[in-house]
Amino acid sequence: MKKIGIIGASGYTGAELLRLIAMHPEFELKVATGETKAGTAIRDLYPSLAACYPTENFASFNPSNIDGLDLVFCALPHGISQSIIPAIHSSVGHIVDLGSDFRLQDPSLYNEWYATEHSCPELLSEFVYGLPELFRSEIRKAPLIAATGCNAAASIFALAPFVKSEAIESKGLIVDLITGVSGAGRPPKEMTTFCAVGENISPYGLLTHRHTPEIEQALTTYSGYPTSVLFTPHLAPMNRGIIATCYGRAKHEITTDEALHQLHSFYADEPFFVVDERPPSTKFTLGSNTVHLTARADVRTGMIIMIAALDNLMKGASGMAIQNANLATGIEETTGLPIAGLYP
Amino acid sequence: MKKIGIIGASGYTGAELLRLIAMHPEFELKVATGETKAGTAIRDLYPSLAACYPTENFASFNPSNIDGLDLVFCALPHGISQSIIPAIHSSVGHIVDLGSDFRLQDPSLYNEWYATEHSCPELLSEFVYGLPELFRSEIRKAPLIAATGCNAAASIFALAPFVKSEAIESKGLIVDLITGVSGAGRPPKEMTTFCAVGENISPYGLLTHRHTPEIEQALTTYSGYPTSVLFTPHLAPMNRGIIATCYGRAKHEITTDEALHQLHSFYADEPFFVVDERPPSTKFTLGSNTVHLTARADVRTGMIIMIAALDNLMKGASGMAIQNANLATGIEETTGLPIAGLYP
Amino acid sequence: MKKIGIIGASGYTGAELLRLIAMHPEFELKVATGETKAGTAIRDLYPSLAACYPTENFASFNPSNIDGLDLVFCALPHGISQSIIPAIHSSVGHIVDLGSDFRLQDPSLYNEWYATEHSCPELLSEFVYGLPELFRSEIRKAPLIAATGCNAAASIFALAPFVKSEAIESKGLIVDLITGVSGAGRPPKEMTTFCAVGENISPYGLLTHRHTPEIEQALTTYSGYPTSVLFTPHLAPMNRGIIATCYGRAKHEITTDEALHQLHSFYADEPFFVVDERPPSTKFTLGSNTVHLTARADVRTGMIIMIAALDNLMKGASGMAIQNANLATGIEETTGLPIAGLYP
Amino acid sequence: MKKIGIIGASGYTGAELLRLIAMHPEFELKVATGETKAGTAIRDLYPSLAACYPTENFASFNPSNIDGLDLVFCALPHGISQSIIPAIHSSVGHIVDLGSDFRLQDPSLYNEWYATEHSCPELLSEFVYGLPELFRSEIRKAPLIAATGCNAAASIFALAPFVKSEAIESKGLIVDLITGVSGAGRPPKEMTTFCAVGENISPYGLLTHRHTPEIEQALTTYSGYPTSVLFTPHLAPMNRGIIATCYGRAKHEITTDEALHQLHSFYADEPFFVVDERPPSTKFTLGSNTVHLTARADVRTGMIIMIAALDNLMKGASGMAIQNANLATGIEETTGLPIAGLYP
Repeated sequence: MKKIGIIGASGYTGAELLRLIAMHPEFELKVATGETKAGTAIRDLYPSLAACYPTENFASFNPSNIDGLDLVFCALPHGISQSIIPAIHSSVGHIVDLGSDFRLQDPSLYNEWYATEHSCPELLSEFVYGLPELFRSEIRKAPLIAATGCNAAASIFALAPFVKSEAIESKGLIVDLITGVSGAGRPPKEMTTFCAVGENISPYGLLTHRHTPEIEQALTTYSGYPTSVLFTPHLAPMNRGIIATCYGRAKHEITTDEALHQLHSFYADEPFFVVDERPPSTKFTLGSNTVHLTARADVRTGMIIMIAALDNLMKGASGMAIQNANLATGIEETTGLPIAGLYP
Repeated sequence: MKKIGIIGASGYTGAELLRLIAMHPEFELKVATGETKAGTAIRDLYPSLAACYPTENFASFNPSNIDGLDLVFCALPHGISQSIIPAIHSSVGHIVDLGSDFRLQDPSLYNEWYATEHSCPELLSEFVYGLPELFRSEIRKAPLIAATGCNAAASIFALAPFVKSEAIESKGLIVDLITGVSGAGRPPKEMTTFCAVGENISPYGLLTHRHTPEIEQALTTYSGYPTSVLFTPHLAPMNRGIIATCYGRAKHEITTDEALHQLHSFYADEPFFVVDERPPSTKFTLGSNTVHLTARADVRTGMIIMIAALDNLMKGASGMAIQNANLATGIEETTGLPIAGLYP
Repeated sequence: MKKIGIIGASGYTGAELLRLIAMHPEFELKVATGETKAGTAIRDLYPSLAACYPTENFASFNPSNIDGLDLVFCALPHGISQSIIPAIHSSVGHIVDLGSDFRLQDPSLYNEWYATEHSCPELLSEFVYGLPELFRSEIRKAPLIAATGCNAAASIFALAPFVKSEAIESKGLIVDLITGVSGAGRPPKEMTTFCAVGENISPYGLLTHRHTPEIEQALTTYSGYPTSVLFTPHLAPMNRGIIATCYGRAKHEITTDEALHQLHSFYADEPFFVVDERPPSTKFTLGSNTVHLTARADVRTGMIIMIAALDNLMKGASGMAIQNANLATGIEETTGLPIAGLYP
Repeated sequence: MKKIGIIGASGYTGAELLRLIAMHPEFELKVATGETKAGTAIRDLYPSLAACYPTENFASFNPSNIDGLDLVFCALPHGISQSIIPAIHSSVGHIVDLGSDFRLQDPSLYNEWYATEHSCPELLSEFVYGLPELFRSEIRKAPLIAATGCNAAASIFALAPFVKSEAIESKGLIVDLITGVSGAGRPPKEMTTFCAVGENISPYGLLTHRHTPEIEQALTTYSGYPTSVLFTPHLAPMNRGIIATCYGRAKHEITTDEALHQLHSFYADEPFFVVDERPPSTKFTLGSNTVHLTARADVRTGMIIMIAALDNLMKGASGMAIQNANLATGIEETTGLPIAGLYP
């Protein structure tokens, strides 16, 4: 059994890690910290976990709590892990950071999109970008992994096969994305109340969303081609789920059958991927680590549409983090990860 | 008082017409037909209308019922009005058709997108396209009006100012649209059950949605430029509301301020339009005839984003139909049309 | 035109008053205060109202702003109006308070259920309880009106006919109620985020909800019989709507037909009431001032079920407040109040 | 590995069985029939299951398909299993019927509540009522099990401890229940479209719901006291979840602490039960086999409130069916059943 810790376990991605670890046959939870909830019973904050954590409490973070653990997940608000990881990374086996602090390799990009200096730029190059389907070999045994952002994951999964194959122009890519509310985290905000979201669709973060450079970096690194992306997210009245509808200009004539064939081939050996002609729906993925995809070629406009759907807390965050952790600790990659969605 | 009839009043757009006519100071309902519901009390099918229609029933269609009416709304399933309007149009003052039968002026386009022959092509050229903000002078006093489709309306409102001003390339326009469920009509279908829609986003009609040629026709007619559109709708878990997020390639450098200024100027005198830098949400428009819009220019990719939100049953269907009817019958255009949205 | 003010206009009941006053032919808004939003444009906080309030701002409260107004609505958080109304009630024509401060006539009840002393008990007896269907004659011309709470209104509407007629035991009444989220107000709270409410039903306030004594007081005052109520509310994933399913022990044998007949007779002359054998749904009432009711007698258990549904922001708050204001200022009671619900 | 079949696998409870069996370490699916979907790929009807059933199809029912299986689940529409089970029960090891045909032991009750004759009354007495927490010893090794209805399960779980202990009068019990839409099944109906359910609460089946006699039978059998129940369900805008808020007249003085203590003691050894002072929410149970409960004693009215929440497709149907199957086939009762809810 691998000894596991979670730093920042009281948020939604932390709670999802708790749920997954409770079902994981080779991971054993040693500590779950949550500064604002230290001393609170897990079952009081998340009654949904009462039957698996009947007596455990959230702890206060303390380096001694995690010293010697095999792997630590950081599920902290953005900007916090850069102040914690430097102090702990040498005393644990592996770290999987679910936040955005160590995803961008170029510190100037961080400064530009996050409007602040990175406090630990020297560690950036030691982190591997935790998207297993594109960077699996780097992730295996990696000590430091920056797991992909939820929106970025859906976008990259849809676009990567076609950027790589040069089926589409790698610049001027359009990602129009719709996301459920849990991506915004647990703390109440004006834009996340039921009355603000129910019966409503709201675009947000126009031109400035921070997952933009992450998508570009991953696509460029993976394909070798320079990329630019216009990313437009919309908030929808659902708890979970992301669907990325992506548009790229075809570089040469292509049919829908060929586009679907490319997609099938690309993900043929991936256990968590379903490619189909039927358009994917977010609900196909609820509670699972599975991604659903399709593609179309439009001869009228010369565009290719590429669509990917996933559960933002699973394959978009905690499920992918477990997948990274499985790879990092050398166990079977799919261990403990459900592939069937809850429906309806 | 104008004497008004509704043919096909038992569907959602028919019911919305009933609601609006009950509040309209110059329209008096004379007959509301509904073939499958003939003899049923309006209050039994729509208890929401019980207090304004306590005793009225849906009637069976009969030309004698509508002979001599000032104006008739047709709120029939697509394909039906082309078999009815030829028989009645000379016996009533005006017809506003909410269906799609008479929107496309070119019968070959109808054949291509609807996969069937039009049974009454000779009337196509007598219909005016009922989008007041673009074709107001043609609509005034027009005897035959084909009101705009809900998705098309949102898309055209967002794109028209920028196609007309040549700010964007008129070909290769992308419309990524999210719609509530009421647009699919009242009869139960597999894709519209609560369990199919709740907690879900589903793209549909990829490459083939019938509002595509309608958008192209309206933009081309209005601007004089040839247009092509890639239109991708998504079904969202809400009753009402459409948001069209549109992308066009800027023909020359433009800033967001300039784009917003163009949008403001274009709709400056329109009573039902709100232009703002704040992104529009569908819920701002609930139950009202108001459209909310914004725009952005992205220097990184050279694209302009144009977004419009409206209530699909109001400005997207029955509200716009009343607006057309007001213009056709020569009364004040805004009569009987709420401009405040229900919130929350 | 009556000159109208709103104190506390930035919350949901305030915004609903703004919406209704914009459509009211005899009310003219003079001032709308909102302490935390003073200086903010109404259209920025409520874009849904942008088309009717394009330039107006929320003001800071100042007695001079409201001096001489014909009527002032107080839509303040509970506990605030008792500190404001004493200072202003002599300088305005009428006050309709939407909060709970002046609903309970007995100050000891206030102390018991609100766990605090009332700061202005001497004014309690000058307030009329603003439930027009039961206390219309007292409300006409009344200077001070405490409008009924939303949950209490639904419960009283269902129970009053049967308590009054002695069809049911007046003690041990059970009210099992389901409410939408807008009743909890605009400020974000942990229990009102989308992720807390979506796909969820949560009972709350077990045994202790403050509308309990209000229901008892109104039923006792109206019927003359001592009453006791066990009130259990549940929070449901919807923006608006309340349904009160009430149970009372039949005092003597009664059939469902007789129960329905009693209900019909009781509300026969009320313009906002729909009685039907069909069970009411909250959505029948969306955006309207209409109440839908039914009843059943169960011979197996000797109970009568009484059910009422309404829109909590309309007939449960702002719509009822306008109805009270119409009565108080001597104009037609139904003026400016929609009776058709928005459906779907 | 036990060889398992599902008859009627294309509905929601069938699909949930498919999901659970895919994760069950000791059950192996041999056949899944679905008459209207025979020949359809499971992944086409339920894309959520595509990753675990990539190539399997629904079969047509044929006795030879199931001959010799260890256990067969019947997940058929009500009224069908009584025509199928007589022909197959001797050729398979065990049958767990999820429908209502064999739940009522007294055929006259069936006739009264289902308004039709039972076609196989002679088998009624051979079925065990499949509610493990109350009838575990009868279920172990039982060949024929009629699993409890979803609404009945929630109601019985809340009431049984207090009826058994004589804390409440066993007659005149009130069950006010709120349920998600999946309980109504997969086929589209007017009352289950998104537009009918979204933003709505609707009571239904007043006085006549068929789970009423089932609740009475189970409580009476278990406690030995005659019971009568008034059962009122409400349909709510959510996919899954049932909450039963139950009211009983206290037979003698009792405090909330004592009531909670009774509840704790009753379910102390049950792995799927969480008792807490905090009111349960349906969402605590999403996707899990866990039941959450609380209780209150109201000294003002002399009533006890008992509340239970569960996932109608899990502990209310397919999860409970698996639990019954585990008991029947002699394996560990909790095998393959998740206890953590998906949140949010």
